[in-house]
Amino acid sequence: MQRVLVVDVGGTKLATGVVDHAGHLISEHRTPTPHDGDAEAIWSALVAGIERALDGAGRPPVEAMGVGCGGPMQWPEGRVSPLTMTGWRDFPLRDRLQERYGAEVRLHNDAICVAIAEHWQGAGQEHANMLGMVVSTGVGGGLILGGALHDGATGNGGHIGHVVVEPDGPQCRCGGRGCLEAVARGPAVAAWAVEHGWNDGEPTAAAVTASARTGNEIAVAALTRAGRAVGLALASTVALLDLELVCIGGGLAQAGELLFGPLAEAYAEHAGVHYARAPRAIPAALGQQAGLIGAAALVLRGDRYWHA
Amino acid sequence: MQRVLVVDVGGTKLATGVVDHAGHLISEHRTPTPHDGDAEAIWSALVAGIERALDGAGRPPVEAMGVGCGGPMQWPEGRVSPLTMTGWRDFPLRDRLQERYGAEVRLHNDAICVAIAEHWQGAGQEHANMLGMVVSTGVGGGLILGGALHDGATGNGGHIGHVVVEPDGPQCRCGGRGCLEAVARGPAVAAWAVEHGWNDGEPTAAAVTASARTGNEIAVAALTRAGRAVGLALASTVALLDLELVCIGGGLAQAGELLFGPLAEAYAEHAGVHYARAPRAIPAALGQQAGLIGAAALVLRGDRYWHA
Repeated sequence: MQRVLVVDVGGTKLATGVVDHAGHLISEHRTPTPHDGDAEAIWSALVAGIERALDGAGRPPVEAMGVGCGGPMQWPEGRVSPLTMTGWRDFPLRDRLQERYGAEVRLHNDAICVAIAEHWQGAGQEHANMLGMVVSTGVGGGLILGGALHDGATGNGGHIGHVVVEPDGPQCRCGGRGCLEAVARGPAVAAWAVEHGWNDGEPTAAAVTASARTGNEIAVAALTRAGRAVGLALASTVALLDLELVCIGGGLAQAGELLFGPLAEAYAEHAGVHYARAPRAIPAALGQQAGLIGAAALVLRGDRYWHA
Repeated sequence: MQRVLVVDVGGTKLATGVVDHAGHLISEHRTPTPHDGDAEAIWSALVAGIERALDGAGRPPVEAMGVGCGGPMQWPEGRVSPLTMTGWRDFPLRDRLQERYGAEVRLHNDAICVAIAEHWQGAGQEHANMLGMVVSTGVGGGLILGGALHDGATGNGGHIGHVVVEPDGPQCRCGGRGCLEAVARGPAVAAWAVEHGWNDGEPTAAAVTASARTGNEIAVAALTRAGRAVGLALASTVALLDLELVCIGGGLAQAGELLFGPLAEAYAEHAGVHYARAPRAIPAALGQQAGLIGAAALVLRGDRYWHA
């Protein structure tokens, strides 16, 4: 039986697992990403997590590996420089894993893996044209078009975080201005709330969301601004690509109606062209396992989701 | 030898032609679109144009037809309701042509045909991921992704005209607000100039462009605004799709640097993400034959450009 070793590398956690040929997780492990760790410290923590996942699955032979990792990266070479992990800069993750485990490694952007997972097993099944997106510390996404992954000329397709939503808006860490990510990523939501006098907790998107649930007006306004920005970016994206569905996951999506309500309002105001008019943004279905399941799909459904 | 009858239906002209199997036009005819004509008057003018094109090619047997037509339309059924041709509403163009000429008819949006033509024979050759767009009475486009046409769930993919460029901007005729088309289409450019005191000619984009060439400041500002709007929409589009190239045709593109200069400036300000940073917008190469050549490609290169 084919077993796929899967890894999901993010700034907060290193998730590892083993997946059977049908795409079910038969073992899973999570460990915090070493903070301020150097390249080898992060690598050691990752290997330890992989070993735990292999133990949990009864140490099957590994035939292939699927990996999701925060961007940017050189793709398909798999040299990664995650924005949220300063210890890895041009780190040869694919080659290191390949040497260590002697298996083919397919590595892609973590938001692309989430989108793939939602198409394969989640909210996007049955839809040939969809965007899966993540609103979290960053804002990313992946595109399924004509039933297959579209990842563009350099593997970065689907990155909705840099669609412009406020032409005169805030500088984005990418160097541009008014990008969706600069407005709607968690830290930007928290910073906006603090700037507007919010002091109902730690300056995090999670605390702002909790505060908004109790009715704090500044917190509600901060999430409203983020939700509207997402809705506007989706109006542009659905009109441009004629998509059937958008699935939204990530920490900020947990705000529920506080985010999705303003999102739907802005979408309705801007999505006027006939084929885009009906609302089509829904919460992602797979939760925190999405990254691992999408990584597995790079291997198990490579015909649709892998072409390097 | 296979001969393809090709048609390009627009609000200004009805272009018809015959194309050989290599995609060369061996005969071509243009006639003005009957103004205020009813459905059958337009149909008669189109048939007359087709007959002239057939005469010009020595009346070869017609084996298939490729047709581009202004949108919106029911696709792939080919029932068309071009915005600029009020005489045709839900007109069964594909079926009428099929009955009249006894050949298979493949019909698509005219801007999609232009994009296909630029990929097949024009400025976009060698590029697997590109947008071809038309800035004219409307603003439309078509997307080549992974070397093939992506036209979305309902055949409307590539319609960059409804990407939002001014969140609080003008109402768009689509029902949305701040769409690229509402800012940059020719009539909007002329209307903006007139509103700002321009009176150097007829209120058309062509006259505004001519006036800008003589240094008229309001005319220059009107084209600057349109060019910046296109540049901003392209920054979003290239970031989202990781495209290699954008080809821009249509009447307004004839303004040259008056449009492309501000376009490049706005693009540079907003396209910050690393893979989008380098400029990549160029003028289309094929001129007014692009629509016919793209229509031919629907038949002759159906493997890449047709999937209905």
